[in-house]
Amino acid sequence: MYRTHTCGELRLENQGNEVTLAGWVQRKRELGGMTFVDLRDRYGITQLVFDENSSDAITSQLKKLGREFVIQATGLVRERSSKNKNIATGEIEIDVKELKVLSPSVVPPFTIEDESDGGDDIRMKYRYLDLRRTPVRENLILRAQMAHAVRSYLNEQDFIETETPVLIKSTPEGARDFVVPSRMNEGEFYALPQSPQQFKQLLMVAGFDRYYQIVKCFRDEDLRADRQPEFTQIDCEMAFVEQEDVLSTFEGLTKYLFKAVKNVEITDFPRMPYSEAIANYGSDKPDTRFEMLIKDISEVVKGKDFKVFDDAEFIGAISAEGCANYTRKQLDALTNWVKRPQVGAKGLVYVKCNEDGSYKSSVDKFYSQEDLQQWASICNAKAGDLILVLSGDKSAMLYALGALRLEMGKQLGLMDKNTFKPLWVVDFPLLEWDEESQRHYAMHHPFTSPKAEDIHLLDSEPGNVRANAYDLVINGVEIGGGSVRIFDSELQAKMFSLLGFTKEEAEAQFGFLMNAFKYGAPPHAGIAFGFDRLVSLFAGLDSIRDVIAFPKNNAGRDVMIDSPSPIAIEQLDELSLKLNVKPQDN
Amino acid sequence: MYRTHTCGELRLENQGNEVTLAGWVQRKRELGGMTFVDLRDRYGITQLVFDENSSDAITSQLKKLGREFVIQATGLVRERSSKNKNIATGEIEIDVKELKVLSPSVVPPFTIEDESDGGDDIRMKYRYLDLRRTPVRENLILRAQMAHAVRSYLNEQDFIETETPVLIKSTPEGARDFVVPSRMNEGEFYALPQSPQQFKQLLMVAGFDRYYQIVKCFRDEDLRADRQPEFTQIDCEMAFVEQEDVLSTFEGLTKYLFKAVKNVEITDFPRMPYSEAIANYGSDKPDTRFEMLIKDISEVVKGKDFKVFDDAEFIGAISAEGCANYTRKQLDALTNWVKRPQVGAKGLVYVKCNEDGSYKSSVDKFYSQEDLQQWASICNAKAGDLILVLSGDKSAMLYALGALRLEMGKQLGLMDKNTFKPLWVVDFPLLEWDEESQRHYAMHHPFTSPKAEDIHLLDSEPGNVRANAYDLVINGVEIGGGSVRIFDSELQAKMFSLLGFTKEEAEAQFGFLMNAFKYGAPPHAGIAFGFDRLVSLFAGLDSIRDVIAFPKNNAGRDVMIDSPSPIAIEQLDELSLKLNVKPQDN
Repeated sequence: MYRTHTCGELRLENQGNEVTLAGWVQRKRELGGMTFVDLRDRYGITQLVFDENSSDAITSQLKKLGREFVIQATGLVRERSSKNKNIATGEIEIDVKELKVLSPSVVPPFTIEDESDGGDDIRMKYRYLDLRRTPVRENLILRAQMAHAVRSYLNEQDFIETETPVLIKSTPEGARDFVVPSRMNEGEFYALPQSPQQFKQLLMVAGFDRYYQIVKCFRDEDLRADRQPEFTQIDCEMAFVEQEDVLSTFEGLTKYLFKAVKNVEITDFPRMPYSEAIANYGSDKPDTRFEMLIKDISEVVKGKDFKVFDDAEFIGAISAEGCANYTRKQLDALTNWVKRPQVGAKGLVYVKCNEDGSYKSSVDKFYSQEDLQQWASICNAKAGDLILVLSGDKSAMLYALGALRLEMGKQLGLMDKNTFKPLWVVDFPLLEWDEESQRHYAMHHPFTSPKAEDIHLLDSEPGNVRANAYDLVINGVEIGGGSVRIFDSELQAKMFSLLGFTKEEAEAQFGFLMNAFKYGAPPHAGIAFGFDRLVSLFAGLDSIRDVIAFPKNNAGRDVMIDSPSPIAIEQLDELSLKLNVKPQDN
Repeated sequence: MYRTHTCGELRLENQGNEVTLAGWVQRKRELGGMTFVDLRDRYGITQLVFDENSSDAITSQLKKLGREFVIQATGLVRERSSKNKNIATGEIEIDVKELKVLSPSVVPPFTIEDESDGGDDIRMKYRYLDLRRTPVRENLILRAQMAHAVRSYLNEQDFIETETPVLIKSTPEGARDFVVPSRMNEGEFYALPQSPQQFKQLLMVAGFDRYYQIVKCFRDEDLRADRQPEFTQIDCEMAFVEQEDVLSTFEGLTKYLFKAVKNVEITDFPRMPYSEAIANYGSDKPDTRFEMLIKDISEVVKGKDFKVFDDAEFIGAISAEGCANYTRKQLDALTNWVKRPQVGAKGLVYVKCNEDGSYKSSVDKFYSQEDLQQWASICNAKAGDLILVLSGDKSAMLYALGALRLEMGKQLGLMDKNTFKPLWVVDFPLLEWDEESQRHYAMHHPFTSPKAEDIHLLDSEPGNVRANAYDLVINGVEIGGGSVRIFDSELQAKMFSLLGFTKEEAEAQFGFLMNAFKYGAPPHAGIAFGFDRLVSLFAGLDSIRDVIAFPKNNAGRDVMIDSPSPIAIEQLDELSLKLNVKPQDN
């Protein structure tokens, strides 16, 4: 037996017990002829003590001990003279009588402590050492707890967890599919699923009624900041439901998770139309932890000979509380910030609402105190606040104001990681117009149902048709989304034609699902949550990488195992493939 | 709202309630001017009644209704005059006032009933219809329940469910790896895991202490009867444990599953050395639902001038209870059966133990009644039994007798699907000798630890070294297996050299794990259960295909979605690949 207890288990009441512990040497220090070793395992840290009376055998072993050695120690539990209130085992220590090195360690490339001295790259290369650090391990334990809570809730709600295949079919639209050559079927390929979308709809056709799965999905795309080629979804679908049934079920799940995992009560769960989110927050994933709503001041600012505003499609403003004292330097910095290409404004107009009731703006030449007071009134700005104004193309400026709003929220400390504000964004447009290809695309996917009251607009104003589609947003992060599906084949055919598919193309891409719908498809709707993102939100982390045991880097590489990698010619031969690598430019 | 209740929910106490149900038309029949429709959903079947007073609108709808139409019906719950005791809703019916067809159906290609008239191929092509059949859906529900029970037990035991990557690294030994070309890393490939073996060992090095995962694994091999290219494992690993800890933990899981899912109490959970399993059952996965042990009668049958036995390395027998009355025809059939290449015997000798105490054998010329009585005594055969004897090469004949034993068990009805006899097979040989390549292979994998008491044999008699490896066998099915791992790098180096790896080869294949072991590896051990097989055992099914929602056929094809399939040249180009399909022979 390697241990009688874990390193997190012993308390004062165990005093006098002979125990055996095993774990890693966190640190070793000598003090007044005694040697103290902090022994660590997943469950905690226990202090081992070796005194001058230790046997020669122990003493010589002890000399060799370095950080991260795996050892086994037997001894008596005793009360500590100087207690450590910071750890659960801090009242006791082990007076060691027997010591065995189970496994030595070379010096680790970074310190295995809560705050490591290792950079990202080295920690990723030695991920198995990084995972020894308590905060990293705790993120993964949180992930496991959350998965368990999700399953408890959904099982309770009669959902059937069903595994769908990983080796599926590549479709012409699947440009971002990972493909898998088949040895048994020469020249043919499987694809890895970007989501189990069609399978979960088939399960509804199959009468499963309520399906879920916590499932790996795959996308072979250029990885932006916080994407991974493989990621995990909580994937769900329900039959004989309307949008409201889905929202209330998954609102229930979200509340349950917050309560079960973080002991946070969510009482308020607003639904916000997409148009309102864009108008007020400049974003379809508004962070509602703070107000600072975008105000349209176009009406009141025009006609005062300020050409910039007079020529603009849209002039919008936000009011930053208590920022009237911003310096010239701070205002210049903000101006540069909004002019960055990612934000896209041409310039920034400000109005300081001075404590004495007067206004000072960068456009005083054109606007009177009364004018500025009117702006302040629209923006709910009071004395001490700072009004920030952007002008230009409407959708671009709403976006830029949304970004500026978040920046000011950050500067003002309004985005507390322990405050959680979820909401549903609903009534998304059904279609998105693509300038380049001069055609509509489905904003969600081609099976998303239009709102019944908008169906009459499908021919006349397709761009104004709203969808029965919804996103769950928490603290400005899109956690999940879904839609009510079309289950009527005529409406589906109409959608395909709106999306510019010929009948043959629709058949080639969606044939097996369309075929299934001929045999009695129930009304159904579904949703998928990004599980990695949800966990990182709960953990208060910015990156999903921190909640994945073995993540890949921005180039899609696992630097620990050095993958992907070349494979043998024989293996390619067996798969009937040849490399066709383009010559490098010199 | 599509429904107020499900089709499995209403009872007599709901009498008089107005309800709305939705589901599929199971069947429609007319009787005395009334029309009865059995409405089906996942939860049950409810009878709808339409009488002569139905509105014209309803009557015209009703006329069109066919099997598998999806409909919605509103009406009053009333007591049935002729009750159906076979279904939970059999005491009531719905007097329908409103009817709506939600989705029509063309005639399905086979009947959606418990016993379908559809063959395997058509049911697989229309798997979404096959899944509508109650027994098929119930297999999948059982699977979900079992996954849930596995998680409950392991979470309770402090295991952390951790997701390991699906896109991993191809290794030279990974001849059966599925590979995945990377678009971002030109000419390089990921591989899909055959198991998360190395990752779970890394998690032990990382101090996770107890890991599990219900995880998809992949193997690109020629598919025998009951294999799938993607399959699901319950994958586990524990640190600071010895073999006995793993056995008792997973014995606990197995007992828990039987109790929680099937309400079966398993009291007895024997451990059987591999050598004993082979000697008594001719198999390393003995079916212990019945005795009929193999007996070695070599000693007593030799030297009586029967050349076949005199020349044989081994003569073994089993006794089939009550089969002394087998006819000539039955015995000939058995003889042919054992001579099939899969069994591999040269012939069959029998001894009938007649009711009158005499013996009648196929070798009466050589053996006296006393001789035969001696055989019977060794075989525990009594009057009325039939002794079956095979002779030849020892290991081949043990195998053949094991197969014959199972065949007789089947013929005698000794393999009741509702009796469950689990056991651990332990003390497997560490190494397997391969005649063709004239070298040893690891019987489990190269990280399996030899038994401490056999380590001294590693150089002198490597073939006799036993491993700390174990298999869980239930009713003759190998449910899972695992081993204590080597965590000592010297012993590991010795293993690699025994297995004929050069240092470089070992480094190339197992480098990142070996490297991790330098930083303090804890003693650890693990196990993996074949989840598909476990579910099919619980469901009383012979094939794992029946417990997989969307299985592939023997050629690795998903005939429903028609995958794998060719992909576009552009897609190959992007992946820097070219097809290299060999010309077909004509």
